[in-house]
Amino acid sequence: MEPILIYDTTLRDGTQGENVTFTADEKLKIAMRLDDIGIHYIEGGWPGSNPRDIRFFDLAKREQFKTARITAFGSTRKPGIEAADDPNLTAIIQSDTPTAAIFGKSWPLHVQAIMDNTLEENLAMIADSVAFLKSRDREVIYDAEHFFDGFKDSPDYALDTLVAAFDAGADFLVLCDTNGGTLPHEVEGISRSVLERLNTRVGDGRPVKLGIHTHNDCGMAAANALSAINCGAVMVHGTINGYGERCGNADLTTIIPVLSAKMNRPCIPGEKLSGLKSLSRYVSETANIVPLNARPFVGHSAFAHKGGIHVSAIMKESRAYEHMNPETVGNQRRVLMSDLAGKSNVEYKAREMGVDLGANGFDSKTIVAAIKQMEDEGYQFDVADGSFQIMLEKFTEQFKPLFDLESFRVTIEKDKDLPCSAHATIKISVGDNHEITAAEGLGPVSALDNALRKALGNFYPDLDSMQLVDFKVRVVDGRDGTEAKVRVFIESRDQDQIWSTIGVSEDIIEASWHALADSFQFKLAKEARQAGKLPKPGSAVARNLKLGWSMSCIA
Amino acid sequence: MEPILIYDTTLRDGTQGENVTFTADEKLKIAMRLDDIGIHYIEGGWPGSNPRDIRFFDLAKREQFKTARITAFGSTRKPGIEAADDPNLTAIIQSDTPTAAIFGKSWPLHVQAIMDNTLEENLAMIADSVAFLKSRDREVIYDAEHFFDGFKDSPDYALDTLVAAFDAGADFLVLCDTNGGTLPHEVEGISRSVLERLNTRVGDGRPVKLGIHTHNDCGMAAANALSAINCGAVMVHGTINGYGERCGNADLTTIIPVLSAKMNRPCIPGEKLSGLKSLSRYVSETANIVPLNARPFVGHSAFAHKGGIHVSAIMKESRAYEHMNPETVGNQRRVLMSDLAGKSNVEYKAREMGVDLGANGFDSKTIVAAIKQMEDEGYQFDVADGSFQIMLEKFTEQFKPLFDLESFRVTIEKDKDLPCSAHATIKISVGDNHEITAAEGLGPVSALDNALRKALGNFYPDLDSMQLVDFKVRVVDGRDGTEAKVRVFIESRDQDQIWSTIGVSEDIIEASWHALADSFQFKLAKEARQAGKLPKPGSAVARNLKLGWSMSCIA
Repeated sequence: MEPILIYDTTLRDGTQGENVTFTADEKLKIAMRLDDIGIHYIEGGWPGSNPRDIRFFDLAKREQFKTARITAFGSTRKPGIEAADDPNLTAIIQSDTPTAAIFGKSWPLHVQAIMDNTLEENLAMIADSVAFLKSRDREVIYDAEHFFDGFKDSPDYALDTLVAAFDAGADFLVLCDTNGGTLPHEVEGISRSVLERLNTRVGDGRPVKLGIHTHNDCGMAAANALSAINCGAVMVHGTINGYGERCGNADLTTIIPVLSAKMNRPCIPGEKLSGLKSLSRYVSETANIVPLNARPFVGHSAFAHKGGIHVSAIMKESRAYEHMNPETVGNQRRVLMSDLAGKSNVEYKAREMGVDLGANGFDSKTIVAAIKQMEDEGYQFDVADGSFQIMLEKFTEQFKPLFDLESFRVTIEKDKDLPCSAHATIKISVGDNHEITAAEGLGPVSALDNALRKALGNFYPDLDSMQLVDFKVRVVDGRDGTEAKVRVFIESRDQDQIWSTIGVSEDIIEASWHALADSFQFKLAKEARQAGKLPKPGSAVARNLKLGWSMSCIA
Repeated sequence: MEPILIYDTTLRDGTQGENVTFTADEKLKIAMRLDDIGIHYIEGGWPGSNPRDIRFFDLAKREQFKTARITAFGSTRKPGIEAADDPNLTAIIQSDTPTAAIFGKSWPLHVQAIMDNTLEENLAMIADSVAFLKSRDREVIYDAEHFFDGFKDSPDYALDTLVAAFDAGADFLVLCDTNGGTLPHEVEGISRSVLERLNTRVGDGRPVKLGIHTHNDCGMAAANALSAINCGAVMVHGTINGYGERCGNADLTTIIPVLSAKMNRPCIPGEKLSGLKSLSRYVSETANIVPLNARPFVGHSAFAHKGGIHVSAIMKESRAYEHMNPETVGNQRRVLMSDLAGKSNVEYKAREMGVDLGANGFDSKTIVAAIKQMEDEGYQFDVADGSFQIMLEKFTEQFKPLFDLESFRVTIEKDKDLPCSAHATIKISVGDNHEITAAEGLGPVSALDNALRKALGNFYPDLDSMQLVDFKVRVVDGRDGTEAKVRVFIESRDQDQIWSTIGVSEDIIEASWHALADSFQFKLAKEARQAGKLPKPGSAVARNLKLGWSMSCIA
C-alpha cells in the first residue's frame, strides 16, 4: 500500500487549544521528539503572526532533522498587493524552511461576508501566493480552509480554489474541515468527488496529491481522516494528543497506530511505533496538561481490565479482550480491582505483588468476597495499589506493621477573618518504643502528615525521600443513603516509585489518616525489604518515573 | 427518517471504566435524569453479579419513568443447565424490568478456547436464554459480544448465533465491537452483509432490528455507531461522557446531537437537546471525574475561540467558525482572553439574581476582573450560584451579613483503633449579641455545621428546614503547580429550593467553613426577604426539586 505522510501541527494548530502554550525552546524539544519517531512534516508555527514562532524557526535552522521537513505556516497574500510585498509571505521565506504551508479561503461566505473581498481576487491571491513560494524553491502545501463547508455551499467555486493552487504549483492540496462539523460519510463523498473532478480539470501530468486536516467537534476527527485516506488522500494532518482549538485536531496518537497496526498502511517506521506512548506523555507534560487516561492506544487505561470475566479470559488468550498487543505502542496491560472483579483479578494482582494468597490457609474466594463488601462500603482499590497490597497481607495475616498508632489529636482554629491554623499531636509506638510529637501544617491532614513524619523520623531516617504528590477526596453515599462516607486517596512517591493508598470513613480526618498510615507503612515495608529485613515482593507496583511530577502540598 | 432508539449503559458498561463507580442511590438519580431527557432504554446493571445492582433495581421499581424502559443485564445461561435454573437469568426476572438484555458469544475463539464449550451448546444457550426471557414476557435485547471479531474469523457461525437469538424471539440483535478494534469501513461492510444475509435466512415476517454497541479503543466509537446506523441499525448503545472500560464506550453526548442536529435522525425529543450539557456535567460530578473540556458539543471548550481571526469573524457571522449554535446543546460560546465576553456574562447573571451591579457606583468591569482573579485562584462560580450571589453583593457593598464569626476551634481525636471523635466550639455575633456553643459531629465539618446551627438557632428558629445535601471536595493546583488548594462545594436545600456554595483554601476546614458560612447566609437572607426584611431578588437561583435527593450528613 502507498505510504501515508504524517503532518504534525501540534506546534501551530495545537497551541490554539485552551491552556496549550509552548515556549520556543519547548517547541524545539518537541520537534526533535517528533523527528525521532519519524514524523514527515512538522509545522512549527506562523512566523508572520508572533515573535515566538520566528524564534522557533531561528532555533530550528541550527538543528539537523533526520526525517522531518520543518514547515512554516501562513496565509495567502492580502488583497490588492503583490505576493512579494506581503509581510506574512516574506516571513515564511525568512524562516528558511524547506516547506511552506499556506491557507486560503474556499467558502464564498468567508471571501465575501467576512473578508469583503471578491471571488476572483481570492483566486488570484491563492495562485499568486503559491507561485511566489514556488519561485523561492519551497515545497508548497496548500490548506483549503473550510473546504467541506465551502464545497457544500458552492462546489464549483471550492474546486476552482484548488485548481488555482494546483496550477500555480502547489505540491499538496489539503482539504480542511476547519469547523469540525463534517461527518465521515460526507468527507468520503466530497473527497471522492474532488479527486474525480480535479483529475479531469488539471492535465499537466503532475499527480494531484490530497491531504486531510480535520477537527474533532463532532467526535469524528480521526474517522474523517480515515475516510479521506480511504478515498486516496496521501497526507494526514493532526496533533499529538489531539490538542487544538475547541475540541481539538485529529489525534496523531490514534491515527498513526490505526494506519500502521490496523490498516497496514506504512507511515512512521514500524520499529518507532513503540515510542508513541512516551511521545504522548512528553507532549502532555510539556504542555502541563493531565494526560487523558482513556486516550486510545496511549492512555493509562487503554489496556486496563476491570470485569472479572474479562480478566479470566485474557489470562487464557489476550486477544479475547484486547484488540492489539499494548506493547506495540509502548503501553501495557493493567488489571484493576473492583467489585466487578472476580477471583482471577485478585489472583492476578496478588501474583504481581508477590503476596501468597494461600499462605496461612486462606482461600482467595473469601478474600474476594471481603473486597466486594469493602467496595460496597466505599473502598475503591482499582486506583489504590498500595492499600490493596496491605489489605491482602492483612487478610492473610502476613502484614507486619512498622509502627502502631497510640493516639492523635488535630486542632483547627480560626479567629474572625484570619486564616485557619492547624496543628496535630501524635503518639505512636515502634516495637517497644513510644514517641509523641506535634507539628503544624497548612491544614489538618498536612499537620498530621508532618507530625507522623517527625515521629517516625527517629526510627526511620530514609523518609525524606518520600513525598505526598496528590490528595483526592470524594463523598460516597452509604449503603442506604442515610449517611455519607468520605473516600480519601493519597498518591505518594520516592526516588523510584509511585504508590497510592485509600481511606474511607464518615470522618474526613479519619479517612485521611488511614490513607496516610497505609502510605507510610507501604514505604517502610519497601525500605525494610530493600534492606533485606522483609521478603521481596513482585515489582509490578513499581512504575517508572520518567516524567517530572510537579510537587504539591496537601490539604 | 426512521427514529433511532438510544440505549444508555452508563450505569452498567460505564462503570467498567477506571474510577467510575456509582452507589445504588446515585444510579437512581442518574436514571431519573436520563429519563428526563428522553433516553429510550436505561441499562441499570447486572443483578446477577453484585448486590449494588440488585439494590438499584429494587429502588427503580418504586419510581415512575416517563420514557425510559429500565433494562436488566446478564449473560446467557451456563452450559449444561436449564435456563430456568440459571441464577443469572432468574436474577434478571427478579429485577422486574420490562426489558432484559443478555449477551452471548459470537466468536468461536471465546466459545472454544476460553469457555471450553462446543459451538452447538453455545447456540442452544443463546436460544434457550432468549426463549426463557420471552416466556416471562420480557422485551429481549440480544448483545452479540465480539460480533465483529467473530464475523471476521467465522462469518457463518457469527450469523448462526444471531439467527438463534432471533428465532427464539429476540426483539433486537445488537452487534458489539467489544474489543473496540474495528474501523468504520469494516463496521459498514459487516453490518450491510449481516442485514442482507439475515433477511434471507429468517422468514417469519418479523423485521430484523439491529443495534450497535461500540468501544473507543481506536478512537472510532461514535463513527462506528454512525456506520451501522447508516446501514440500517435502529438502536445505538453508549454512555454519557463515553465512560466505560479502557478507552470507553460510544459517547451519547456526541451521538445524540450528531443524529439530531447533523443527520436529521430523530432520537430524543428536539426540545430536550438543550439539556445535554447539564446532563453531561451531572454525570461527571456524580462520578467525581473532572469534565473533559474538549468533549465534543458539551465540553467547556467546545465553542471556545482563541485565535484573533476567528473571534473577529464570529462577531460578523457565527457559522464562520462554529459548526452549530452552541445553545442547541445547552452550551455557550466563549471568547478566551476577552473581558467583553466576561462582562456580558456577569451582567446577565446579576440581572437574573436581582443584584444591581451599578449600585453604590461600582463598575461591572472591575467586578469582572476580580471574578477572573478568583477563578484563576480556584473558585468556580458556574456551579455555585449561592456564593456567586453573595460575592456580587459583597463587591457592590450590598451584602448584609446576618451573623459574623468571632472564632471557632475544631478538634479531632483518635485513640488506637477506635473511631475518630470530632467536636467544635464556635463563637458568633448577631448584631450586638454574642453566642458561644459547642457540638459534636461525625467529622470536623459536621461538628462545625452542628455548632453553627446551634448558635444561630437562638436567633433564627427557621433553620430546621435547611439541610446540607451534598459535600464535594476537589484539590486544585495553584497558579504554578507548586501549591495545592482545596475547593469545597456544599449543596443545601430547604422545602422549596436548592443552592450551592463554594470555599477555596489550602486548608480543607477553612474552605469548608467558607462554603458553610455562605450557605447559612444565603438561607438567612432568603428568610429575611420572605419576612419582608430584605428586598426580594430574582428567582433564577431557585431550581426545581424534581429529584428525590437523598439526605446525607457531611464529613
